[in-house]
Amino acid sequence: MELFEKKFYASMSSKVALLNRITHFVVNRKGKQMRPMFVFLVAKLCGAEGVQERTYRGASVIELIHTATLVHDDVVDDSNQRRGFFSINALWKNKIAVLVGDYLLSKGLLLCIDHDDFDLLKIISVAVRSMSEGELLQIEKARRLDITEEVYLEIIKQKTATLIASCCAIGARSVHAPEKEVQKMWAFGEALGMAFQIKDDLFDYGSAQIGKPLGIDIKERKLTMPLIHALNQANKEERRWLLNSIKNHKRDKKRVKEVIEKVKSLGGLTYAVDQMKHYQAQAMSILNSYPEGPVKSSLRLMIEYVIDRKK
Amino acid sequence: MELFEKKFYASMSSKVALLNRITHFVVNRKGKQMRPMFVFLVAKLCGAEGVQERTYRGASVIELIHTATLVHDDVVDDSNQRRGFFSINALWKNKIAVLVGDYLLSKGLLLCIDHDDFDLLKIISVAVRSMSEGELLQIEKARRLDITEEVYLEIIKQKTATLIASCCAIGARSVHAPEKEVQKMWAFGEALGMAFQIKDDLFDYGSAQIGKPLGIDIKERKLTMPLIHALNQANKEERRWLLNSIKNHKRDKKRVKEVIEKVKSLGGLTYAVDQMKHYQAQAMSILNSYPEGPVKSSLRLMIEYVIDRKK
Repeated sequence: MELFEKKFYASMSSKVALLNRITHFVVNRKGKQMRPMFVFLVAKLCGAEGVQERTYRGASVIELIHTATLVHDDVVDDSNQRRGFFSINALWKNKIAVLVGDYLLSKGLLLCIDHDDFDLLKIISVAVRSMSEGELLQIEKARRLDITEEVYLEIIKQKTATLIASCCAIGARSVHAPEKEVQKMWAFGEALGMAFQIKDDLFDYGSAQIGKPLGIDIKERKLTMPLIHALNQANKEERRWLLNSIKNHKRDKKRVKEVIEKVKSLGGLTYAVDQMKHYQAQAMSILNSYPEGPVKSSLRLMIEYVIDRKK
Repeated sequence: MELFEKKFYASMSSKVALLNRITHFVVNRKGKQMRPMFVFLVAKLCGAEGVQERTYRGASVIELIHTATLVHDDVVDDSNQRRGFFSINALWKNKIAVLVGDYLLSKGLLLCIDHDDFDLLKIISVAVRSMSEGELLQIEKARRLDITEEVYLEIIKQKTATLIASCCAIGARSVHAPEKEVQKMWAFGEALGMAFQIKDDLFDYGSAQIGKPLGIDIKERKLTMPLIHALNQANKEERRWLLNSIKNHKRDKKRVKEVIEKVKSLGGLTYAVDQMKHYQAQAMSILNSYPEGPVKSSLRLMIEYVIDRKK
């Protein structure tokens, strides 16, 4: 990971001083780097000895694209309305966030192109389309409050699972794994990504240990699995009360807490946890087709982390 | 151009209804479509009979990328502070503008990838990097008010001329012109792009017939060629007055008008017009190495339009 970070940092450099200051800042922020880790571990799982240049490149490109989307995610409609999360907007402004995101994206593409890595480029471009389309689908549905569980699953697949599936496919492809194994790893990453996002959405209902305040998604009219299931289970009156609360009382903290309680009592949390475990089991069963060893153990730990993390 | 528009529209389609509504809106807005026009005309100039599929594709990709940057350009720091220009923000919000821009960008990339057009992809990725880097360089320099003419030329090359150069190179490449001719067409487009941006910046000093209010760039601390030249020509006292006006009195309309007058009297406008004509002549001299004919005449008209347009 150390060598990776050096290469990753080098891949972002620019002649423009402002850009270097910002990218330096972004790198120092350093997330969990879960995505590059999947690239490396899957490459090893598929039989790599040592780490190949193609694998480093895949990990760098994935992290560039992921960082670009984080920076773009920092563009806000009303300033100072961010979660407790790092925000470029606290220091700079929307316009800069858009441009830095675009710059990082283009650097990711050029890293592929400079090495004639057409395969990598294709996976990445599909991921970028998928992420923006998924987020837009969510915004569209959030406004109308008419989201079904099927549409919710489609949204989280597009906005989250596709990128993690891409990490795993890129890891496999980087060591010239056969097409069938690349697809298997894609399915592995996709299942894991689904579990990851359901977990993320559960934080809104109080499963986080620290940091994130509750009910943010509800305030943003973002219907996720617990609430969608609760609405399906609710009787007419409960349903009317829930929808009315989200539409008209989302700024009322007491009311939002009541919504969370209602979702719990209607079994929304239990159901979402079950679904998360279902996807986790899917990923685990794919992993289990591989022989035991340190790489498999690491990936098993990563799968457990996705489910058990507290933030 | 009609057939192009059909293909272009088809290239933007999505499963997400919100996206289709927005892209429909974006297409109907229809700009001058100067960039695709350069792709087609240069392809013809380099000897194409009829219009080839590769040329349509190049024009579509260019227009997708250009539209993506326009949509991203609509992201604002303070809402409702836009020029008299079409703004996605008037109807939707920053977040949507970012996502739609990213989506259009990925569609452009995928259009290249679906046809294994690696050459096109490379030119496009370089253009995206160049545009974001140029805009960021401008923001950096605008804050410090220490921009030189050399840096100004670098900024407009990166943010504007590279994309127009890309159009011309793509047009030539799409009909398999030899590398040397592709480079010649790149130089042609770059010179034209420089003239185009200098003209654009001149509008801020009153050369527009309608629409755009004066002094917007001054209010945004954006120093362009007329002002940079004026600062170079100014004596110490004039220089101090100019910089003080931009720093501390940019919201004072009367003062901004006085700045414009000062720039004029110091020869800033004349100088910028001369420079614009210098780049125009460069483009014209490249064009003149081709035999006369209807395509050359059309391109000559386009060059004149770049200089003579009133908005």
